[in-house]
Amino acid sequence: MPERLTLYTAKICPFAHRVEIALAEAKANFNTYEIQDLRNKPQWYIDKVNPASKVPAIAYGGPDVPLDQPSPESLKLTESLILVELVADLFPSSNLLPTDPILRAKSRYFTEVVQSKLVPAWIGAIFSGGPLEPLYAALEAVQALLPADKPYALGDAYSAADVTVTPFLARMEVALKNDTGTFKEGEGFKAAEIIFSSERFVRLARYLEALKARESFKTFNTDYITEKYRVRFAERTASHH
Amino acid sequence: MPERLTLYTAKICPFAHRVEIALAEAKANFNTYEIQDLRNKPQWYIDKVNPASKVPAIAYGGPDVPLDQPSPESLKLTESLILVELVADLFPSSNLLPTDPILRAKSRYFTEVVQSKLVPAWIGAIFSGGPLEPLYAALEAVQALLPADKPYALGDAYSAADVTVTPFLARMEVALKNDTGTFKEGEGFKAAEIIFSSERFVRLARYLEALKARESFKTFNTDYITEKYRVRFAERTASHH
Repeated sequence: MPERLTLYTAKICPFAHRVEIALAEAKANFNTYEIQDLRNKPQWYIDKVNPASKVPAIAYGGPDVPLDQPSPESLKLTESLILVELVADLFPSSNLLPTDPILRAKSRYFTEVVQSKLVPAWIGAIFSGGPLEPLYAALEAVQALLPADKPYALGDAYSAADVTVTPFLARMEVALKNDTGTFKEGEGFKAAEIIFSSERFVRLARYLEALKARESFKTFNTDYITEKYRVRFAERTASHH
Repeated sequence: MPERLTLYTAKICPFAHRVEIALAEAKANFNTYEIQDLRNKPQWYIDKVNPASKVPAIAYGGPDVPLDQPSPESLKLTESLILVELVADLFPSSNLLPTDPILRAKSRYFTEVVQSKLVPAWIGAIFSGGPLEPLYAALEAVQALLPADKPYALGDAYSAADVTVTPFLARMEVALKNDTGTFKEGEGFKAAEIIFSSERFVRLARYLEALKARESFKTFNTDYITEKYRVRFAERTASHH
């Protein structure tokens, strides 16, 4: 039986969102503390939870304390991919990682492609003023790993692989369809056409629909992310009007 | 019972060495194919084993074929950290990953620090002409995770965490003690003094001795690496004489 578990998270952050999805899939009993402003985290968070000052983090075990007064007796764990594997290990009935060693390796390889290709291309295209082409290339690399006639990365069974890609695809859809990002005005709409309404990414688009149909996708608040991106990139938009 | 397993590796490569150590720890029954020249890999390797043209790779299952004629029926798996976890999963009696979910997370966190801090600092200092200071900082980050009075990263039990760091510490020792690297002549000797003979890294140096005392460390051919580094960096040395 897992011990007391508190997730420190932020709705805006795709890395933290991975752990929220994993815990939802595991039907875990846990506490959530939302860090409201990632640019201005509470000092107790840095001192007592994660000196690296990043979300997500998990406090595991220890006494029943207020969430903003973490006990030194609980263990503090970080890094989203490690936390997803931790949830899979703590809650084996979640089936987030298959028992077959080869399928586990395939799940981890899918995640490796997400982490080494999609994540940097996603940051580049939407947040860092980079071009959109590397994003298409990364999406093609992800798409190439998807089975033709089965819903999820590993086939019929949902797994940790699917958990790790979902927050990035979901936020990409919001950013592009609302044309909010560091790209030139209108480029987001065009990219959304290419990714969500063309033959080139038809398999990937169907995959995203399968991910969004999961009960665990209720962890994604579309309106909240839409508004946050709108405000964040308002200056760019304003400067063009 | 695991199926037929072939490791494609190269003695010079620290990433491939991780998998050699893991398989040795697991006392696995497997075939080894050594890629002699990493700058000139056989075409069949790129076509039939790893299109990314990197070692290590594992061919798993399929018929009993000559190692340089890989069957399309075997599964090809890559990425050193994924392969180490695969070996741990295929050979649970190796105890490379503890059964306790929290200890598994701790092993993965140690490896994450190795991968995100030590590996780039090691490449920078020894192969890319970078400064030595980031290497010291990374070694301090690794050292800070070691328990004070137990031999290995997780304590008394050897684990995947130890596997993933060993090839880099062992090659670093060879490079510095022989003053072979992209650093200025003599800087390697000085760094070796700091790392292997000063109070600052006394815990880390003791840790490396424990790693080198493992039976699985016979996978490291000190003479071979020493000579390869000597030849590789001979031009630098020659240009100073």
